[in-house]
Amino acid sequence: MRLADSFRSERFGAVRIHELQRVIELDSGAGDHAGLLPVSSAGSRVVPPEALRAVENEMVIVVPCMNETRSVIEGVLSGVPHDCLIVLVSNSDRLPVDRYEIEAQTVEQFCRLAGRSAVTVHQKDPGLAAAFKAAGMAELIADDGLVRNGKGEAMLIGMALAAMTGRKYLGYVDADNYVPGAVHEYCKAYAAGLHLANSPFSMVRISWHSKPKLKDGRLFFSRKGRSSAITNDWLNRFLAEYSGFGTEVIATGNAGEHAMSMELGLKLRLAGGFAVEPFEYMDLFEQFGGLLENPNPDVMAASVPVLQIETRNPHFHDNKGEEHVQGMRMQALNVLYHSAVTLPSVRQAIIEFMVAQGALETGQEPPRERVYPPVGTLALDLLYDALDAEAQSFREFDGRSMAGLPQAPPIERGRIPGMEAPRAA
Amino acid sequence: MRLADSFRSERFGAVRIHELQRVIELDSGAGDHAGLLPVSSAGSRVVPPEALRAVENEMVIVVPCMNETRSVIEGVLSGVPHDCLIVLVSNSDRLPVDRYEIEAQTVEQFCRLAGRSAVTVHQKDPGLAAAFKAAGMAELIADDGLVRNGKGEAMLIGMALAAMTGRKYLGYVDADNYVPGAVHEYCKAYAAGLHLANSPFSMVRISWHSKPKLKDGRLFFSRKGRSSAITNDWLNRFLAEYSGFGTEVIATGNAGEHAMSMELGLKLRLAGGFAVEPFEYMDLFEQFGGLLENPNPDVMAASVPVLQIETRNPHFHDNKGEEHVQGMRMQALNVLYHSAVTLPSVRQAIIEFMVAQGALETGQEPPRERVYPPVGTLALDLLYDALDAEAQSFREFDGRSMAGLPQAPPIERGRIPGMEAPRAA
Repeated sequence: MRLADSFRSERFGAVRIHELQRVIELDSGAGDHAGLLPVSSAGSRVVPPEALRAVENEMVIVVPCMNETRSVIEGVLSGVPHDCLIVLVSNSDRLPVDRYEIEAQTVEQFCRLAGRSAVTVHQKDPGLAAAFKAAGMAELIADDGLVRNGKGEAMLIGMALAAMTGRKYLGYVDADNYVPGAVHEYCKAYAAGLHLANSPFSMVRISWHSKPKLKDGRLFFSRKGRSSAITNDWLNRFLAEYSGFGTEVIATGNAGEHAMSMELGLKLRLAGGFAVEPFEYMDLFEQFGGLLENPNPDVMAASVPVLQIETRNPHFHDNKGEEHVQGMRMQALNVLYHSAVTLPSVRQAIIEFMVAQGALETGQEPPRERVYPPVGTLALDLLYDALDAEAQSFREFDGRSMAGLPQAPPIERGRIPGMEAPRAA
Repeated sequence: MRLADSFRSERFGAVRIHELQRVIELDSGAGDHAGLLPVSSAGSRVVPPEALRAVENEMVIVVPCMNETRSVIEGVLSGVPHDCLIVLVSNSDRLPVDRYEIEAQTVEQFCRLAGRSAVTVHQKDPGLAAAFKAAGMAELIADDGLVRNGKGEAMLIGMALAAMTGRKYLGYVDADNYVPGAVHEYCKAYAAGLHLANSPFSMVRISWHSKPKLKDGRLFFSRKGRSSAITNDWLNRFLAEYSGFGTEVIATGNAGEHAMSMELGLKLRLAGGFAVEPFEYMDLFEQFGGLLENPNPDVMAASVPVLQIETRNPHFHDNKGEEHVQGMRMQALNVLYHSAVTLPSVRQAIIEFMVAQGALETGQEPPRERVYPPVGTLALDLLYDALDAEAQSFREFDGRSMAGLPQAPPIERGRIPGMEAPRAA
């Protein structure tokens, strides 16, 4: 993969946000750049196949899924590079038809055909709730005793499962994607970005090239998402208020497609619902911005690069409607408003904006979004044992052993991080 | 890339048409299948990256282009694997705005950024017409002294330019494609298929997974093209009439996306306009079906595999309207009707069908489509010299030398096939 160089970045404490980089070539060849060093030429940079492969071998792709059709899921799976491990977290309807069973079968069949490994689980499985309780995160459980609904919650579950595999990287790909080639490009961009970031604490966030929409009966390729533009504007305003310089550096505030090193992921606090993606930025600023007490010394010394990559493919998915978008937009503002590092002037402006949008009554405060403790605080061994014993929807597929090849179980109990070592907190 | 196995094939003389094979994984990893041998497991077959690369290194991708926007062209270019050489043949408007100049600039800029080589030419360049005349194909020239309009004509020009590079393979990718990842998948499928075909005379034809269409204000993923279904039905009927067994083996009669070994390409006669794609099948049957006199003994001994691959990505392009489709459909029937190997019963049925469709008056014959001599009969050295001297739109971009790297001219005069050897008729 060849990426345009990123010439500028904005620092916020240890966090270094790089300007958006375009993908120039999906496949930049093996050619004359042997070895693992990126090859740089006029304004662009090649990440050769071996370097991509090295990251993919250590990457888990988490696919949050809700009521997608079999053929769409099959397409998404086909786009995830072979060496990545797939984790599907479903919150699909189980009645009147058990859509999760269909999804799990789809994943199993794909694993069998492709000789791959995968894990699937259903978000509302009582055994999953019990496992998270046992592992030390009762916050995830609602009054009905089940894991809460929400995309952030699905992503947290996925991260915990990914952490159990002992792999080093984690990427998210939404299941509602009609273009397998886009999924493929996201994963390659994750690998390229994580390779270039060259830090144990790194994040890669995707900005899609365009989004096809129906407008007056014809297709129109929109460059910006409705919700993204507003979220990005406010995140940039947050930065500008500190630096005194206007900036447009953040282009991926709502990026559903993003990846990170597991070491960073385990430290992040994830927010619930659609607040999850913008809150990642806020949590980076809170934890690694150097403004609050008790910064993490390892991370502060290493720096936290955030690479933003503009992919080539259009982001072509189902239209979830205006309500969904308005919800996303306001959840982003809620987390920004309530962050301990947001300056008062920005908080005041957020209130005015929300009132003007009709999203807030005058004199009220924006609601707080739910924020969970880091996945790194979970006792992963207890999580695995409880899942294994109680979660009926928890499936581990080993497509290599199905094909008569040597076993390659997606999770090996003995290799779960922290299994040997004394448990933290 | 991992492809489902093709279990069945239909033979017609030396031509062996393989049943449609699905793409299972876009990227099947490097994993444990080192070397160039395809790895087969339960029902599927992996073509490893080195094998794909070996074909791409020898492949020219020809992009016929007419009035596409800069950003669509850029996207298509970004999807063509680095090691392939790009040939863009344009028939875009040059007035009031010179769209070809914009296209050529787009290609040049891409070559510069990506360190790649490419060739571009405009179909209506008087110098191009003069060059084809000099090289021995006056048939391509219309009364106005310029090369005729038509997609087949653009493909023929592209094939001739590709042949001059001395590369071994040739693939076509239409410029009107909104999904760079689909272009990428087509090229990978070409490479995988040509590798698996393992014959000096081989062809790979693409059947796209689905085609998004607007229907009642929402998107609908259609599995079959309007024109393709009819073309395929008639080609299969052609085969069935010989074998006595009904068949659905041909799924790619109108495949715009297809590739072939140059050795096969140079022997094929191409038809004009939209007849070009279905006529390739008919020409294979005529030349290598063993029914007519004077079969080519080399080819007859080697066999001519035709692989058909169903890609994962949707084929997402501009809607050219109903007239275009009706035209394509009828041009396919015209070539089938007039082929010397089509049995009388099929010819009669074609007439009845066309009359019923309102495409033919009772008692008339379908019109003949234009068919050109094989590109292999051209004097490529004369073609190159005339292009170089007279065709003002003829551009050769060497992105490596632009980037200060060692030169990699797309065409090297001394390596043009037939340049040394005495010219064939």
